[in-house]
Amino acid sequence: MSLANGRRYLATPGPSVMPDRVLNAMHRAAPNIYEGEMLQLTESLWPDLKALAGTRQHATIYIGNGHAAWEAANSNALRRGDTAIVLATGRFGHGWAENAQQLGVEIALTDFGTAAPIDLERCEAALRAQPNARAVLVTHVDTATTVRNNIKMLRRLMDDLNHPALLMVDCIASLGCDEFRMDDWGVDVMVAASQKGVMTPPGLGFVFFSEKARAVAKTSDRRSPYWNWDNRADAEHFYMHFYGTAPTHHLFGLREALTMITEEGLEAVFHRHRILAQAVWAAGAAWSQEGAFALNIQDPAARSHAVTAMRLAAPDGTRLRRWCEDHGGLTLGVGLGMAPPGSPQADAFFRLAHMGHVNAHMTLGALAVMDAGMKALGIAHGSGALEAATSAIAQG
Amino acid sequence: MSLANGRRYLATPGPSVMPDRVLNAMHRAAPNIYEGEMLQLTESLWPDLKALAGTRQHATIYIGNGHAAWEAANSNALRRGDTAIVLATGRFGHGWAENAQQLGVEIALTDFGTAAPIDLERCEAALRAQPNARAVLVTHVDTATTVRNNIKMLRRLMDDLNHPALLMVDCIASLGCDEFRMDDWGVDVMVAASQKGVMTPPGLGFVFFSEKARAVAKTSDRRSPYWNWDNRADAEHFYMHFYGTAPTHHLFGLREALTMITEEGLEAVFHRHRILAQAVWAAGAAWSQEGAFALNIQDPAARSHAVTAMRLAAPDGTRLRRWCEDHGGLTLGVGLGMAPPGSPQADAFFRLAHMGHVNAHMTLGALAVMDAGMKALGIAHGSGALEAATSAIAQG
Amino acid sequence: MSLANGRRYLATPGPSVMPDRVLNAMHRAAPNIYEGEMLQLTESLWPDLKALAGTRQHATIYIGNGHAAWEAANSNALRRGDTAIVLATGRFGHGWAENAQQLGVEIALTDFGTAAPIDLERCEAALRAQPNARAVLVTHVDTATTVRNNIKMLRRLMDDLNHPALLMVDCIASLGCDEFRMDDWGVDVMVAASQKGVMTPPGLGFVFFSEKARAVAKTSDRRSPYWNWDNRADAEHFYMHFYGTAPTHHLFGLREALTMITEEGLEAVFHRHRILAQAVWAAGAAWSQEGAFALNIQDPAARSHAVTAMRLAAPDGTRLRRWCEDHGGLTLGVGLGMAPPGSPQADAFFRLAHMGHVNAHMTLGALAVMDAGMKALGIAHGSGALEAATSAIAQG
Amino acid sequence: MSLANGRRYLATPGPSVMPDRVLNAMHRAAPNIYEGEMLQLTESLWPDLKALAGTRQHATIYIGNGHAAWEAANSNALRRGDTAIVLATGRFGHGWAENAQQLGVEIALTDFGTAAPIDLERCEAALRAQPNARAVLVTHVDTATTVRNNIKMLRRLMDDLNHPALLMVDCIASLGCDEFRMDDWGVDVMVAASQKGVMTPPGLGFVFFSEKARAVAKTSDRRSPYWNWDNRADAEHFYMHFYGTAPTHHLFGLREALTMITEEGLEAVFHRHRILAQAVWAAGAAWSQEGAFALNIQDPAARSHAVTAMRLAAPDGTRLRRWCEDHGGLTLGVGLGMAPPGSPQADAFFRLAHMGHVNAHMTLGALAVMDAGMKALGIAHGSGALEAATSAIAQG
Repeated sequence: MSLANGRRYLATPGPSVMPDRVLNAMHRAAPNIYEGEMLQLTESLWPDLKALAGTRQHATIYIGNGHAAWEAANSNALRRGDTAIVLATGRFGHGWAENAQQLGVEIALTDFGTAAPIDLERCEAALRAQPNARAVLVTHVDTATTVRNNIKMLRRLMDDLNHPALLMVDCIASLGCDEFRMDDWGVDVMVAASQKGVMTPPGLGFVFFSEKARAVAKTSDRRSPYWNWDNRADAEHFYMHFYGTAPTHHLFGLREALTMITEEGLEAVFHRHRILAQAVWAAGAAWSQEGAFALNIQDPAARSHAVTAMRLAAPDGTRLRRWCEDHGGLTLGVGLGMAPPGSPQADAFFRLAHMGHVNAHMTLGALAVMDAGMKALGIAHGSGALEAATSAIAQG
Repeated sequence: MSLANGRRYLATPGPSVMPDRVLNAMHRAAPNIYEGEMLQLTESLWPDLKALAGTRQHATIYIGNGHAAWEAANSNALRRGDTAIVLATGRFGHGWAENAQQLGVEIALTDFGTAAPIDLERCEAALRAQPNARAVLVTHVDTATTVRNNIKMLRRLMDDLNHPALLMVDCIASLGCDEFRMDDWGVDVMVAASQKGVMTPPGLGFVFFSEKARAVAKTSDRRSPYWNWDNRADAEHFYMHFYGTAPTHHLFGLREALTMITEEGLEAVFHRHRILAQAVWAAGAAWSQEGAFALNIQDPAARSHAVTAMRLAAPDGTRLRRWCEDHGGLTLGVGLGMAPPGSPQADAFFRLAHMGHVNAHMTLGALAVMDAGMKALGIAHGSGALEAATSAIAQG
Repeated sequence: MSLANGRRYLATPGPSVMPDRVLNAMHRAAPNIYEGEMLQLTESLWPDLKALAGTRQHATIYIGNGHAAWEAANSNALRRGDTAIVLATGRFGHGWAENAQQLGVEIALTDFGTAAPIDLERCEAALRAQPNARAVLVTHVDTATTVRNNIKMLRRLMDDLNHPALLMVDCIASLGCDEFRMDDWGVDVMVAASQKGVMTPPGLGFVFFSEKARAVAKTSDRRSPYWNWDNRADAEHFYMHFYGTAPTHHLFGLREALTMITEEGLEAVFHRHRILAQAVWAAGAAWSQEGAFALNIQDPAARSHAVTAMRLAAPDGTRLRRWCEDHGGLTLGVGLGMAPPGSPQADAFFRLAHMGHVNAHMTLGALAVMDAGMKALGIAHGSGALEAATSAIAQG
Repeated sequence: MSLANGRRYLATPGPSVMPDRVLNAMHRAAPNIYEGEMLQLTESLWPDLKALAGTRQHATIYIGNGHAAWEAANSNALRRGDTAIVLATGRFGHGWAENAQQLGVEIALTDFGTAAPIDLERCEAALRAQPNARAVLVTHVDTATTVRNNIKMLRRLMDDLNHPALLMVDCIASLGCDEFRMDDWGVDVMVAASQKGVMTPPGLGFVFFSEKARAVAKTSDRRSPYWNWDNRADAEHFYMHFYGTAPTHHLFGLREALTMITEEGLEAVFHRHRILAQAVWAAGAAWSQEGAFALNIQDPAARSHAVTAMRLAAPDGTRLRRWCEDHGGLTLGVGLGMAPPGSPQADAFFRLAHMGHVNAHMTLGALAVMDAGMKALGIAHGSGALEAATSAIAQG
């Protein structure tokens, strides 16, 4: 006996919910990749991708995941022996740095922990300590901690210090969810992927880069034919966009997802994510009034609009997650990088995604299932969470 | 700007949410209808349909909708000039009677209004007044009023009175949601359709009939080749099940839907609907504490487990319905048959379905969107509705 | 070991091959049937359906199959005791008459056998013998014999004789394949269905009717609420088009199929069917030069453009059909109504459909598989069939 | 007016026809990638992939295309400054070598042209000239020339010469079509991709490697985290199989494709490809009797069973290709690497794929459309091609 049967809601922070329109667009016969519709469809993607990233510079699509996008960016923009300043605010910041390190890059790490955004004072110290660093690597939103960093302020700091480094930003968890303006904010390299705010199954990585980054990359000794972004951005022949066979069905899906974003309007998309996040935070604030429930990030200004990390007293995080899946039809995300895997404390954390193809019904339903779960499991929690959330929606 | 974009939830009482598994099962090439898999698949449906109806007697599938099932039942079981006792508890009870009347049947109507179930005293009077009536027509659940009638008690009354009429029951809105035992409860004819609890797109009507009904039908002067249930139930050749070409893709879908019900177990399906209904009622009870909100049916024992009719002060029902669709991604059902169409009062009523492919996330999310909508629109309502609902779920 | 694995081709005369576009259109969430998109979509169907039928008069869609369309037409246009002249050129002509007979209509049958079209002299005799007949029933193309009748000439004859009967035509196997002009040809009632030239899964019947037929129908004593075409054609409310719940997913599919036909252009659709039929006939003529192979209809002017009945010496028809399915990935249609079912002679006949979503590759491939099958089975046949077919295509 | 409308057949050598079952398997909600079904499904792939490759050693899946698989193999097995012997029999052999060269590997090239397989004498010379070469790179089937090389004999030669090089083979165009026995034939590294014989949309590359190759790779200075095959083959955590997010929907599709291959049986799959290829060759031999038509590879033993390159007098190759697409519903592949792109001679060549999800109906239909096209365009060609093909099928 369970109340889970019905349309299940996967609220993990990637892959997110795939729209029926995207899945339908992918459900079609293979196309010719030498001429015809597939070529036009692909050309139509570039302006939409650039609009999403807020850039007029260069865009590439890699067949790969987010890690592939990391490696693509690192392979082009960095060389063996270069130093990269890493401003880590969660597991994925560290992961990107590890990729660079394994490619032969020296890492100058500043670690802001698992519950806070970058701090400009410590950033300044890091920048001053490495005046010749090739690049600064930072996540816009770290999917693990769900912290959101202020990239615009970081750029201003770099400018104030006349620091020559490339500013490289990981927007894998934020693209299409949180406002991001690559050109306005002076970002040189931005990496993203298909399976979160872009609402397309995992399998595509995106790398956007500035003219400045492009010039630096010309001298890279780590870029291989697959990762080389020049050929992809300025493909003489269609196949060069993908260094070989195009990911035809993903492109069908991506085309539809970008059309959906365009139809809604980017500002409306950001607004939707902002209000839904506020609903989650409002519920979190109420639950926190009693018992061990807490949102991972205290400062609302540093919270992602796409995903929210939370905790209970271990092992209640995992207990709640299981109850929601088994009884409510809701799959929450596991905690990542907040505690050693396998340690008791790892069972305290979990995450609720509210990214991409998500609306008030889905998010409010998720909060309500969590509320039911805490009641069913006897986990102490503050009351009034759901009405706090519906109030946030009503005002949104 | 809207919070509706995302996976929309159509919570109208038919068609209900189609499971991905059902849609996928229907997404396939046309089959041979003269030999092979389609024939075996169809044979596999009969025992599962009969189990769903609680009968070991006869089952037929008509290409048609619920109204087609009405006409099929009437055409077989009734003759011109016969009298049928109609116990109406909502618009669909009247609709079935109108069908019979247009076929030449005399209707002896007892109308229980739009907010109450049948009442055994009045039923007794109706039965005594028409000792030779050919049949009693009654809805198990009327989709319009969302009343649920006690069929078992009605049968007992008929038995006590030794009334010879066939007991004919419309389960269109209840099959697969509310417990129903055709043979145990002594029902002679039961009609249903695919698009509600059976989770298959509209296009199939079902008629189940007893041996007694079959014998009566032999003398019918209204049954045409299409409606004749004998050939369908005892088809010598495959095409006779459908009097012509089989509805191939609907059968693929129905097969999958019945498999899903079997996998979950019928008792678990009923349990799920009961608990979700209780969550809706708990929210409704809280909202009713202030302002004009009311559930249409007062007695919980007379409420459908599949759909709940509600009202606000006109025109707030319609305002709320529009807000939920435009801002929350939730489509509620219109009120039907509760007030003259187009009258101001018609905008008071609406319905929330919780039938078929539905789980805690979907139903709690729907209640939460309604709560947000009342707040956004300034519609007075009692507080605590959502926690009342999550408590019901937690105890379920 | 088989050469059949791959994309199988179901070349039976209904259901025909469903286009991916149609299946995709049907693969979507259930819509609201009380307001919004579904209502507009349905309104858009009527002009396209009428254009397909060549009429400006009345169109209806029934949830049902071709037999349902028969009964709908008969129930409206005929009364108990009326006489209908039936001009039968195959099993389906007889089937339609049987439906009328079971509704209480007197049948005046002229049977043209299983291999010939109607003959105007015998038609004249039939008309003169029944000057007060209410209707003439005839198939445009009989799916069983694959004969095509000249409806225009039949109408001219009726006019010449000043016969008052309604001209009722079954286009189930020809609509969207063979040219048909309802109004120009003076047809009063035309019935069709979704699963052949209209490229939509079985489940919809169509009935088109003239003003004259409509007037006659007002007095019908056989029309029941479900079949009544007045309400459907002039629906005051959306649900009245379908007397109840709309067949939502079929309507999505039908919309796409009609769009495909419109995009191609009706003349181009007819041209495609004509040339593909000529390729089949060319192959048939060559195969006939040796052994027992024969096309069922001798006169090309009397052959359907949508399906071709053929025969070999029994049991080679069935042997070939099985070989094509097991080894070639091609499913041919069984012979229908050409010999008593189960008789040895029944295994002589088979049919190749070339209707609806069909192109040169599919039809030529089917002929080639048949050629391979006759070789593999040692069935004597004339040579040069395939090049005769490709020549027909090349000239088309 | 065209005869192309209907189910179009894309007979290009990749992507090939995607089975409905595979597309359906991919049409589903995103799964949890941290626990549950997706993990089990992925584990089930390894034995099936290894069986397909004929190995008990190591298998990896990369999110990427065939070029990604090249780079993965090169990055692991080769180091800067290593020498690789390249035995090129077409454009893709050169392409793989260019990838290696750009990674810093010295290439010792023997070019066998565009119409012949490797020649053991010249191979011996190449091996003797580079006794310390790290690897031999060769394509099993080159998709451009459609030559098939005898890998077993090459290995025997290497063994006879005691050459220590790794034998690295590109099976992108042959896996699942032509027999291949990695372990039996002594292959050290094999690369393939999803979109040809494996019947899954482009987006997955496969690299299989031997223990010997694995040991060599430990010292590679070119392998980056993304390409590192050790972590992928021996993933401690699920995400390490893919170095990050799994390609969830492709894995659903691949699972279904491998199930289809298993159900048919690998020997039956090879048999089917062999016979269909023989049908193509038989038609080609007949067409070659008159006019300029020719198959690209003379020796049947050196022809791919998956794709066949052909030529006419320029520009008839391109004319025929366009006719088939515009009038027949058949898309042939362009010629690749047979003449300078844009040169008149480039319009002589084209290719017919018969790989993956392909049966007698599809291949015979393709040949027949080509025959019709040559007739329609007045291109001289020998007669009897189609019956030669059906004879080959009949005997198969």
